[in-house]
Amino acid sequence: MLTYDLKKAPGLPLYESLYRHIREDIRSGRLRPGEKLPSKRSLAVHLEVSRVTVESAYDQLAAEGYISAQQRRGYFVEEVSTRPTSPPAPPPPEPEAPAGVDLTGGGGGDFPFSVWSRLQRGVMLDYGPQLLRRMPNQGLLSLRQAIAGHLAAFRGMAVDPADILIGAGTDFLYNLLIQLLGREKCYGVEDPGYGKIWKIYRAGGARCVPVSMDRQGADPAALGPAQVLHITPSHHFPTGRVMPLDRRLELLRWAAESDRWIIEDDYDSEFRFHARPLPAMHTLDRAGQVIYMNTFSKTLAPSIRIGYMVLPRPLMEQFRRRLGFYSCTVPSFEQYTLERFLSQGHFEKHIDRMRRSYKSRRNRLLDLLQTSPIRNKIAISEEDAGLHFLVRVDTALDDQALADRWAAAGIWVRSLSSYFHGPVPESARHTLVVNYDRLTDRDLQELARRLPALEQEERHDQ
Amino acid sequence: MLTYDLKKAPGLPLYESLYRHIREDIRSGRLRPGEKLPSKRSLAVHLEVSRVTVESAYDQLAAEGYISAQQRRGYFVEEVSTRPTSPPAPPPPEPEAPAGVDLTGGGGGDFPFSVWSRLQRGVMLDYGPQLLRRMPNQGLLSLRQAIAGHLAAFRGMAVDPADILIGAGTDFLYNLLIQLLGREKCYGVEDPGYGKIWKIYRAGGARCVPVSMDRQGADPAALGPAQVLHITPSHHFPTGRVMPLDRRLELLRWAAESDRWIIEDDYDSEFRFHARPLPAMHTLDRAGQVIYMNTFSKTLAPSIRIGYMVLPRPLMEQFRRRLGFYSCTVPSFEQYTLERFLSQGHFEKHIDRMRRSYKSRRNRLLDLLQTSPIRNKIAISEEDAGLHFLVRVDTALDDQALADRWAAAGIWVRSLSSYFHGPVPESARHTLVVNYDRLTDRDLQELARRLPALEQEERHDQ
Repeated sequence: MLTYDLKKAPGLPLYESLYRHIREDIRSGRLRPGEKLPSKRSLAVHLEVSRVTVESAYDQLAAEGYISAQQRRGYFVEEVSTRPTSPPAPPPPEPEAPAGVDLTGGGGGDFPFSVWSRLQRGVMLDYGPQLLRRMPNQGLLSLRQAIAGHLAAFRGMAVDPADILIGAGTDFLYNLLIQLLGREKCYGVEDPGYGKIWKIYRAGGARCVPVSMDRQGADPAALGPAQVLHITPSHHFPTGRVMPLDRRLELLRWAAESDRWIIEDDYDSEFRFHARPLPAMHTLDRAGQVIYMNTFSKTLAPSIRIGYMVLPRPLMEQFRRRLGFYSCTVPSFEQYTLERFLSQGHFEKHIDRMRRSYKSRRNRLLDLLQTSPIRNKIAISEEDAGLHFLVRVDTALDDQALADRWAAAGIWVRSLSSYFHGPVPESARHTLVVNYDRLTDRDLQELARRLPALEQEERHDQ
Repeated sequence: MLTYDLKKAPGLPLYESLYRHIREDIRSGRLRPGEKLPSKRSLAVHLEVSRVTVESAYDQLAAEGYISAQQRRGYFVEEVSTRPTSPPAPPPPEPEAPAGVDLTGGGGGDFPFSVWSRLQRGVMLDYGPQLLRRMPNQGLLSLRQAIAGHLAAFRGMAVDPADILIGAGTDFLYNLLIQLLGREKCYGVEDPGYGKIWKIYRAGGARCVPVSMDRQGADPAALGPAQVLHITPSHHFPTGRVMPLDRRLELLRWAAESDRWIIEDDYDSEFRFHARPLPAMHTLDRAGQVIYMNTFSKTLAPSIRIGYMVLPRPLMEQFRRRLGFYSCTVPSFEQYTLERFLSQGHFEKHIDRMRRSYKSRRNRLLDLLQTSPIRNKIAISEEDAGLHFLVRVDTALDDQALADRWAAAGIWVRSLSSYFHGPVPESARHTLVVNYDRLTDRDLQELARRLPALEQEERHDQ
């Protein structure tokens, strides 16, 4: 008779334990196809368990096809093909955070926890079961209204909430856009630019071309076969350039010429230090060719995954018709919480505070660099916008080798050339991109300690 | 001199109001290219505002290219091409919830608010700034560990947390899968099946073929050119069939034959009423061809967007290499909260409660139908699993017309044929899919009131 040690494991009912033992015996071949199992009653007596335990185990085995019941004859082992189990490979290590001073960016900081937490509690209390309801696939109307209000107050944009589409970050929204505009189209991406954009379009199966930049931004002479142009006019990444009005109008004319699209990626327009951010191209767009995109991951925290886009009306109608089956990807809790955060003025205050804080970080970092031992080797270009600046270094090293050297000294920066898809012009070959959005006091002290080593290395080379 | 009524609007600084007035005048042509603007001082005096106000407005206009400063001469209006503004079209109405009794499904209900809310507060308190940190793109390790623990306890699955990928719902994960496996591959989708799967693969640019079903599930003889097979073996939607072991092994052999993939969509395996859910194909998979998928949107609430998949190790390595640039789409708050919800045993309790609740709903609905005036016209097929059953109606009407008739009586159901991509077999032509996951007491009363009307209609036809 089958004999097993049925120790009760936590969370594992007896019948489950029995079921697993028998299953293992069938899989390993100890119980052979056609073999008859003991009757429920006799096995129960033999193992000193209840008959229900045996019955449940047999039911489970039968439901899975390991055994079958033959009327009045009992249970028989079925034919089951098995393969030997190989031991699983060891898991790869989890990625670790880099040591030293990280100037590669990443956003977030000074998040207003207590306010957010209070709003969350309020949302939970006020909405109750409403939070369970399937959301409109564009996102909650009330959040879209709050976003429209924010865009009106801070960007002077007149946006109808019906034209806003909310998604779990811009990565997801880019993927939707490819499906909406068509992957057979050719996507022009700023070169240099934020490398992820390029990767997402490529992963989505779209054709991509790099569009080179002049002083004013994406060069109209370099648009080539592009039919969709992804740009950051408010503040180009990584050069920091702001696209002037003339260039904006020129690109809008290009788009209106032949059913082309402009994706206006307005990702950190909130952090302009002087005057207010430039108006969005969306505002200048008369022909309905501009898709406006922004995210709260940059302004609130990278772990808050809420992005949105404003679609021209006919495109939104197409979305509803062709892609309306997609569920909204942002949890309702977060949507209601963000709605209150926006409409109660907390976002405005947060941005003001962050702007001051970033400005102070920037100024302290500039001071540090400009009084450091490497001050005579560097030229900083700073466009009064965004969360980073460029540092051109007077060196024979190319910028990747330079970034490696800084990394060896415990200062993590990115090379400007790493943002290029096409050939890197000479002017960009010795330039580093310095992000200060996460810079702390400790980082500044570390930098003061580590910068001299760079100077010594340089001297050592000469 | 320029004269404007600068009423202070809430949230709109004075300089912004002035800036907008002047911008409007330039756009409309009232201020013409080349025209000189008044000096800052004189305009400030004229408008009775501070000089800083005028300066800020001019700075903004200059930054945007509407005016330009000429040294020692003052500010001049620039050439700006404008187009007439057309009034925006009225927004389309927001979609409304259907009236009557909704038996089309949607999940959710009895969500343990107070527990979830308490966990959220705890997460906020315990993690603080850690919540801001960029998450691993696979999702938080601690949540993946909790999911692995859940899969071990409830599905008998041995899963390494390193092989789990968390995303904002399965829609997003399907899109990732297409990018990972390749859209040039041919995707086999169960026919009938959950229509969204088909739509997502198509929208993602993948080739799809319908795979017809026999009594055991996806028919191996109908796989045709499929290289990736998306199936619901634990509980086929919408027929409710459970795939027996033999068929599982047969499909695994098919996959192992030539580098094919099986996507095991285990979406509602938690809600089996008798015995425990069937073991996942993932457990039987020796060759590493099975991608396991599940979601918490179905078991918790549709507004909680957390799905996950378990990838075979080499596929996970490919994901890291090729698609590792994607940010995790689920907010950290939700991930930490769900982790506690799982690891503190709340999920287990919730599932138990839901299973009882669904079972009671099912039984009451079955009772109601089987004692209703239409009882002699219907045959219910019920596979003891999932949140719906099939109702075959003895009628000359096809099932879509039937569903329309039920809808006219205020009872919303879906026709079985609406889940087919290919030709609908005769056996499915008069069958309705009845979901009871959201069924309330009120719904039952409404149904009791509305069902007789259907019987009268039927008689009227004859």
